[in-house]
Amino acid sequence: MANVSAKRKSKTATIADIAHVGPGTPCGEWFRRYWVVVGIARDLYNIPQAVKVLGEDLVLFRDEFGKLGLLRLHCPHRGTSLEYGDIEHGGLRCPYHGWLFDVTGQCLDMPAEPKDSKFPQKVKHLSYPVRQLGGLLFAYMGSEKNPPPVPRYAPLLDRGGQRQIEPVRHADYNWFNFFENSADPAHVCILHRHAGYGQQSWGNQFFSYTDMPNFEFVEMDYGMKVVMTKPGPRPETEFVDEMSLALPSIVQVGDTEFVHAKMDAAALMSEGSRCDHWMFVTPNDDEHFMLFTVDNYTGPVENFFEHLKELRAKETPIQEVKPYDKRKYMPYKGNIRQEDIMTQGTQGLIGERSEQLGSSDRGVLKFRKIVLDAINTALDRAQPKGVIADKDADAIFRLDTQVGVRPSRK
Amino acid sequence: MANVSAKRKSKTATIADIAHVGPGTPCGEWFRRYWVVVGIARDLYNIPQAVKVLGEDLVLFRDEFGKLGLLRLHCPHRGTSLEYGDIEHGGLRCPYHGWLFDVTGQCLDMPAEPKDSKFPQKVKHLSYPVRQLGGLLFAYMGSEKNPPPVPRYAPLLDRGGQRQIEPVRHADYNWFNFFENSADPAHVCILHRHAGYGQQSWGNQFFSYTDMPNFEFVEMDYGMKVVMTKPGPRPETEFVDEMSLALPSIVQVGDTEFVHAKMDAAALMSEGSRCDHWMFVTPNDDEHFMLFTVDNYTGPVENFFEHLKELRAKETPIQEVKPYDKRKYMPYKGNIRQEDIMTQGTQGLIGERSEQLGSSDRGVLKFRKIVLDAINTALDRAQPKGVIADKDADAIFRLDTQVGVRPSRK
Amino acid sequence: MANVSAKRKSKTATIADIAHVGPGTPCGEWFRRYWVVVGIARDLYNIPQAVKVLGEDLVLFRDEFGKLGLLRLHCPHRGTSLEYGDIEHGGLRCPYHGWLFDVTGQCLDMPAEPKDSKFPQKVKHLSYPVRQLGGLLFAYMGSEKNPPPVPRYAPLLDRGGQRQIEPVRHADYNWFNFFENSADPAHVCILHRHAGYGQQSWGNQFFSYTDMPNFEFVEMDYGMKVVMTKPGPRPETEFVDEMSLALPSIVQVGDTEFVHAKMDAAALMSEGSRCDHWMFVTPNDDEHFMLFTVDNYTGPVENFFEHLKELRAKETPIQEVKPYDKRKYMPYKGNIRQEDIMTQGTQGLIGERSEQLGSSDRGVLKFRKIVLDAINTALDRAQPKGVIADKDADAIFRLDTQVGVRPSRK
Repeated sequence: MANVSAKRKSKTATIADIAHVGPGTPCGEWFRRYWVVVGIARDLYNIPQAVKVLGEDLVLFRDEFGKLGLLRLHCPHRGTSLEYGDIEHGGLRCPYHGWLFDVTGQCLDMPAEPKDSKFPQKVKHLSYPVRQLGGLLFAYMGSEKNPPPVPRYAPLLDRGGQRQIEPVRHADYNWFNFFENSADPAHVCILHRHAGYGQQSWGNQFFSYTDMPNFEFVEMDYGMKVVMTKPGPRPETEFVDEMSLALPSIVQVGDTEFVHAKMDAAALMSEGSRCDHWMFVTPNDDEHFMLFTVDNYTGPVENFFEHLKELRAKETPIQEVKPYDKRKYMPYKGNIRQEDIMTQGTQGLIGERSEQLGSSDRGVLKFRKIVLDAINTALDRAQPKGVIADKDADAIFRLDTQVGVRPSRK
Repeated sequence: MANVSAKRKSKTATIADIAHVGPGTPCGEWFRRYWVVVGIARDLYNIPQAVKVLGEDLVLFRDEFGKLGLLRLHCPHRGTSLEYGDIEHGGLRCPYHGWLFDVTGQCLDMPAEPKDSKFPQKVKHLSYPVRQLGGLLFAYMGSEKNPPPVPRYAPLLDRGGQRQIEPVRHADYNWFNFFENSADPAHVCILHRHAGYGQQSWGNQFFSYTDMPNFEFVEMDYGMKVVMTKPGPRPETEFVDEMSLALPSIVQVGDTEFVHAKMDAAALMSEGSRCDHWMFVTPNDDEHFMLFTVDNYTGPVENFFEHLKELRAKETPIQEVKPYDKRKYMPYKGNIRQEDIMTQGTQGLIGERSEQLGSSDRGVLKFRKIVLDAINTALDRAQPKGVIADKDADAIFRLDTQVGVRPSRK
Repeated sequence: MANVSAKRKSKTATIADIAHVGPGTPCGEWFRRYWVVVGIARDLYNIPQAVKVLGEDLVLFRDEFGKLGLLRLHCPHRGTSLEYGDIEHGGLRCPYHGWLFDVTGQCLDMPAEPKDSKFPQKVKHLSYPVRQLGGLLFAYMGSEKNPPPVPRYAPLLDRGGQRQIEPVRHADYNWFNFFENSADPAHVCILHRHAGYGQQSWGNQFFSYTDMPNFEFVEMDYGMKVVMTKPGPRPETEFVDEMSLALPSIVQVGDTEFVHAKMDAAALMSEGSRCDHWMFVTPNDDEHFMLFTVDNYTGPVENFFEHLKELRAKETPIQEVKPYDKRKYMPYKGNIRQEDIMTQGTQGLIGERSEQLGSSDRGVLKFRKIVLDAINTALDRAQPKGVIADKDADAIFRLDTQVGVRPSRK
């Protein structure tokens, strides 16, 4: 019994594991239970696209018939990069000796082997299934024979409204610094006091540095919801602003309309936010990640995203930078994204940096526990939180993030 | 007995050893049994030239009397780089304290020591013998007291004809990716189908992608010969194109006249190729190598190399590169050397990359065995293949590479 | 007894330890017994200044009341760099969650914690005391509760004369290569024969390559003094030029007036040099150091440092660099500082490089022993050489470096 216990314990993931996503790591294996975003459909041209995902060098391509493939980057023959291959004859052909692979990794042709050789059919290159949904490309990198259904993420479905997919953003720090930042609403009132959040005027200066809203953290089927409230404009009402974190790595922010699009009146509506702002985080490796951002707007404003783009362009840092100031991330104050990059980019890796946490970090602590539980569930070979069951394949995956005025719940 | 066996086995080099050339490694010790090219005579000016060879930092120089020296880069006194020393008074003088070394490494002077000090004569810096042959500089980095004779490589001897030494080429990948590429004739028909080989018209489109020549691999005293044949223009004849690989790291290609100089008619001659094209590969370390290329032409065309140079300049990649195409090695198609760099530069290290080999790789497999046998012979302290015996010191070292039409041998 | 002996021996520092200055290393712990220069007062603006010292990432700042602080760079809360913090409300405020630290590291405010929280007073960030002296900023990074007095280094005291602090210089090699270079006067006559030292004309061509002065090495309370002498201009006199090395890392050179300011006549005066030239070496880590240079001049020339600056500007390398000469440090001959950077920058680390030392290295050997003795004294938790005792707090720290003519001492 002692042995068993010791063995079990040694397999339990701890906080430091969250930073590491390579093959065979606890967090890496957990990540491989979900579909992850590996590219944007409109950015995949008629050439192979090398991409590093979860520590693996891969190549993404669309064959001449439109089928999507994601193969190990290096040819199984002698290792040359398939990034330089030709898309032709139903697959991707290695430039060195012409081996041809279809999107399943099956070798279809070896020009230098005898015409009657059985060797091609024996060679199957490592491949992962890829699905397109609403303009994003999702891959499943797990070892399960039958991947779970691709979640029908709400803003990626064609249900009316306007949709925008931003150009991919690349960051050179650990993915979890970004992700858990959303479990920490206090930083919005503090770090972002110089930018959009500090300037918005609805909801009794909702994100005030000196009068912060109340924070609650609610575990959800998909992960966690951050609920921020303040007393409302009328008796028995409250202002509410909710953010959601869905496993393995999605963030939903609901207040784009009034923080960035400056539609304060809209925020006062009781029906809540009409702009979903989802960010899909995909680790390239432990030090880099990609950010895929999708907005879906269902309100009445025409050309909403053109309007939003103009306003975002004005959110430039307001900081004066003196000639003697050579700091790398300057200026940052006044632009939410640059503020985030500066803080998250200098933190170091979770589990390696030293920390002292307070009561305002309870959302972070709760969320780390939710992620660790999910990782340990995957280590136990059970279905972790947020993976779609086959019976739920048709359900819409929503993150019910409310922003606006509602009856008080206290 | 079991112990002895185990001991022996542990010393046997395996495929992964071929990638590593530093001091004390199996392949590195084997390499040190041969003379290796460390520079080009015309590029060695009146200043010291730092060069890394087989993982060792060295400095090459010619003293004021013309004698060649190759010393460890760092002064034995306090470590300063001799690259910044002065060539004077019969040697190379360290800038820091003026220690003076002759080409044998013997210290001749220490200006700050007492005039009657015996210390200088006791200090002998690490040095390797250097010999000049036909414009190239060869060094022997082995520990044997009596190095073998410098091979009298045919194209470097003054026997009439025109000679050309190209500027040194530097590559940042493992030396063996380049070397074994020549044991693999299939790639010529496939990778190079867009460049010179695909465009040449002699020999029934000799290197056709869809109708490749027959390949044979013949072990030779010097290494291996690749024999490519196709049925000839008349009954009982065959087209032949041979390439040779000589140990430790020389490649001979015989078809320069018709692939690059476009002399198709010449290729039809029964006397064979008149242009030797030799490439000497010298590893700097496991990730870098230098390529020294010598051509010797004995045909009738005057100013052959000016003609060749003009034609080579036109062999630019034909690939259109779209604005969205940011791939590192683009464009490559249409230039044999850039095609090679792309494929070999992305392969990774032999023994570390995974491979699946077919029947068209039998040349590569045979050649790897020849190299491994030579390495293991050196580990046994015997003379490995291709090292010149004293009795053969005067023999000309030829690689009998025939290109042309000959009586059929089948 | 044997065990005790073995234990003691294992703690004794050896030559290779001198290169390593990080926390917990023998040399690093020794260094932390002294006040070290971490910045220049005039370069510390109203923004935090990140600085790496002895392998630790720190941030230097002056609070709004002028108090100096040196804190660990990363916030103890969640690790964000305090380099981007705001100087306000009596301290430095982290940009992420607004934690505010005073110069002692005491947390004063946590905006997101409850107003009555006791958490802020429990958090004390790592801090080191900083003192300003004559334009330089000194920090004490040791663990002693009561740091020793800041040495009253002579050129930093306001005692009349003109003072100059040069812009900080940054070097990317080991600190000890620079430091021990000054224990080696032979190099002055050899390496610097092309620059100022070779060109000066006083003292019978004092630093002649072919007729070097006599060298003596005298252990001092503060470290070591290098005494160079030659027969003087009159019977019973001698020319003298002294350099000093003070622990942990200060070099004093006394001959600036005649080597750089070309005041040969001044050098003939019996009262000796009137320009102290002190260099404070501060390792950033094992591969980088900073150099803080202070001159103090007490002679009669007005605007001495403007004059000196003009002359130094003319000390450009005299070396012709041919088009084929691509060596990194070219040109270097003719500028003392570039000569030093080339030699010291290519030496590699002490203890890792191989060396063969002669009688002219006796100063280096003696000095290494002095440093090692001091390191081992610190390992024994005793006071190492050069640390100021409390009772000597008011004494002026002088390096009595004489340059000029004096009665012969032989």
